[in-house]
Amino acid sequence: MESERVKAAQKESLERVRVKMMTMALDACVITDLSVIRWLTGFSGSAGRLLVTPQKSWFFTDFRYQEQAAREVVVAETVIAADGFAAELASGRYPLGETVALQSDTVSWNEAIRLIEQLHGKQRVLPVDSFFDEFRMVKNGIELVKMRRAAVVSEQVLERVLSMISPAVTELDIAAEITYQHKKLGAERDSFEPIVAGGARSAMPHARPSAARFKPGELIVIDTGCVVEGYASDQTRTVALGKISDEARKVYRIVQEAQELGIASARCGMVAKELDDEVRRYIAYYGYTEEFGHGLGHGVGLDVHEEPRISAKGEHELRENMVFTIEPGIYLPGKFGVRIEDTVVMSPQGAAPLQQFTKELIEL
Amino acid sequence: MESERVKAAQKESLERVRVKMMTMALDACVITDLSVIRWLTGFSGSAGRLLVTPQKSWFFTDFRYQEQAAREVVVAETVIAADGFAAELASGRYPLGETVALQSDTVSWNEAIRLIEQLHGKQRVLPVDSFFDEFRMVKNGIELVKMRRAAVVSEQVLERVLSMISPAVTELDIAAEITYQHKKLGAERDSFEPIVAGGARSAMPHARPSAARFKPGELIVIDTGCVVEGYASDQTRTVALGKISDEARKVYRIVQEAQELGIASARCGMVAKELDDEVRRYIAYYGYTEEFGHGLGHGVGLDVHEEPRISAKGEHELRENMVFTIEPGIYLPGKFGVRIEDTVVMSPQGAAPLQQFTKELIEL
Repeated sequence: MESERVKAAQKESLERVRVKMMTMALDACVITDLSVIRWLTGFSGSAGRLLVTPQKSWFFTDFRYQEQAAREVVVAETVIAADGFAAELASGRYPLGETVALQSDTVSWNEAIRLIEQLHGKQRVLPVDSFFDEFRMVKNGIELVKMRRAAVVSEQVLERVLSMISPAVTELDIAAEITYQHKKLGAERDSFEPIVAGGARSAMPHARPSAARFKPGELIVIDTGCVVEGYASDQTRTVALGKISDEARKVYRIVQEAQELGIASARCGMVAKELDDEVRRYIAYYGYTEEFGHGLGHGVGLDVHEEPRISAKGEHELRENMVFTIEPGIYLPGKFGVRIEDTVVMSPQGAAPLQQFTKELIEL
Repeated sequence: MESERVKAAQKESLERVRVKMMTMALDACVITDLSVIRWLTGFSGSAGRLLVTPQKSWFFTDFRYQEQAAREVVVAETVIAADGFAAELASGRYPLGETVALQSDTVSWNEAIRLIEQLHGKQRVLPVDSFFDEFRMVKNGIELVKMRRAAVVSEQVLERVLSMISPAVTELDIAAEITYQHKKLGAERDSFEPIVAGGARSAMPHARPSAARFKPGELIVIDTGCVVEGYASDQTRTVALGKISDEARKVYRIVQEAQELGIASARCGMVAKELDDEVRRYIAYYGYTEEFGHGLGHGVGLDVHEEPRISAKGEHELRENMVFTIEPGIYLPGKFGVRIEDTVVMSPQGAAPLQQFTKELIEL
């Protein structure tokens, strides 16, 4: 049964967390990142804190999620913290020991201050940053299945909306349709607000869809993703409406080749920044150094942006079953932009895209 | 011109922030909450930090938002912080003085630690919590216009989707339609994932839409909101599919009367918790004390949940042009739930709902 396997995977993950806690001499660990909490417990709501100790785990949430937690959370005991989490944790009912790790990348400074105050110096509160990345970067089989499902939904939606693009519709029309189709095809939600950007707006890597209609001769960047059973997809294609300029065609080809180079170059054992550098040098060769101003990619999983970052600062080694995007782009402000993105999974044979959607220039 | 008025309002808000900084002896203020940044600068992207000093303001973002910031941000100078915000702030290029306030409710503990380290003790970094609530709680005329627009979109969408509810469709179908219609009617996005919960699932205040079809005799909670020009709406109606039980009808009536009591009781000068208490006592009179387990309401604005909280802990005084929800509910686990919610704006005459949608029981 899938749910049995999921629970077994959760227990195994918790044990790995406990081993790491032991090596770091942590008596307790307070987890504040809802993605990590979902990974460890299956809780899919939007408010909760998880306390892990060597013997036992507790999940704290509020009244609103009582029923949901009862259904979803098996590996930890659920506590409804009526007076707030800090007061509950400091109540003396939990075996916190001497050193409590507090996940510092997702807790607010405010909550950290409050927690430290409430504990009255009885425990040392240690900030831990990126504590779970090493586990979450590498996906297990259950996770990969979900990620493939999410990728398939995104591809199907892209196919559906491409047939709708014409001078009669706006970016917002297409964006609304993408969100709608994601949900109709079984996704929980978009993994981020769809980017649908035509003409000069395609030169903004994070353009918001506008009420502008598409014009013949425009390039259109469509960057979308959805969430299936907690796991995100992320893909980008750039398409043309009618004939585009020679310059646009040339830039498209460079980005396409750069993206394919990225996929072909990824190897287990490589450091993320080396992959970024390889693709960046290819684009720089054509003179578009400044015009590719973002990282080559990022990890994808329970979060649509997670480790490993594939950028000049990416120090993680690429390993089997890591999942990340490869998404070079060239942006010419005031003119147009091109970005092509696949989410790939690493294997000893190299990087394999979760998407099959063509990367040849589509002229609608 | 509206944009002139918007810029004037931004400048006025910045001046009020500066006056408060002066009274608190703060030489600089680092703002990390994107809603506050949007309120002060108009920036609508998803990454940025704002530095306010007595003389000048700087807005820090990254490459992806360069063009967008250039278009949107007038009241502050935009800086693309290539090496990250902490390094940029500590570069010595900014007049930070001796005491820097850092918004602590929205900054991660991690970022706070990094910032303090980078400043090498040259500045004292002071956590400030809820610094902007007093300003943001009270809406100006431009904000109220946007909030009315958002409320109208939500109402229109509710009307459209009610006609779709039948035993042939699922909660997810309706949720997808709500999101789609929000966008088609001009909203930027949902202000939160729509809650569409029939039968026993309606007893979960934060139910996630499921693949379950609606059944005759069920109550269905529909809690939705959208964002128009940055401002959120929030409304809930509970409707019946066909005939419902006498108990459900009775509970509906109690919630309806409680909600109307809440609107009728709200007065400028009242403390938020008094309003919560008044409605809570009404529901308790019918024996549903435990079954109304959440606060009566919450402020709405650039965030769909903001101050003033209308709960037993709500210490804010209700004032003219505050906007908040009134949303009592009664939840009977395993059976059904009822919640009715309007977003209201306070005036010396009392609370006026932004929604006109009927609160009489609709039997579809």
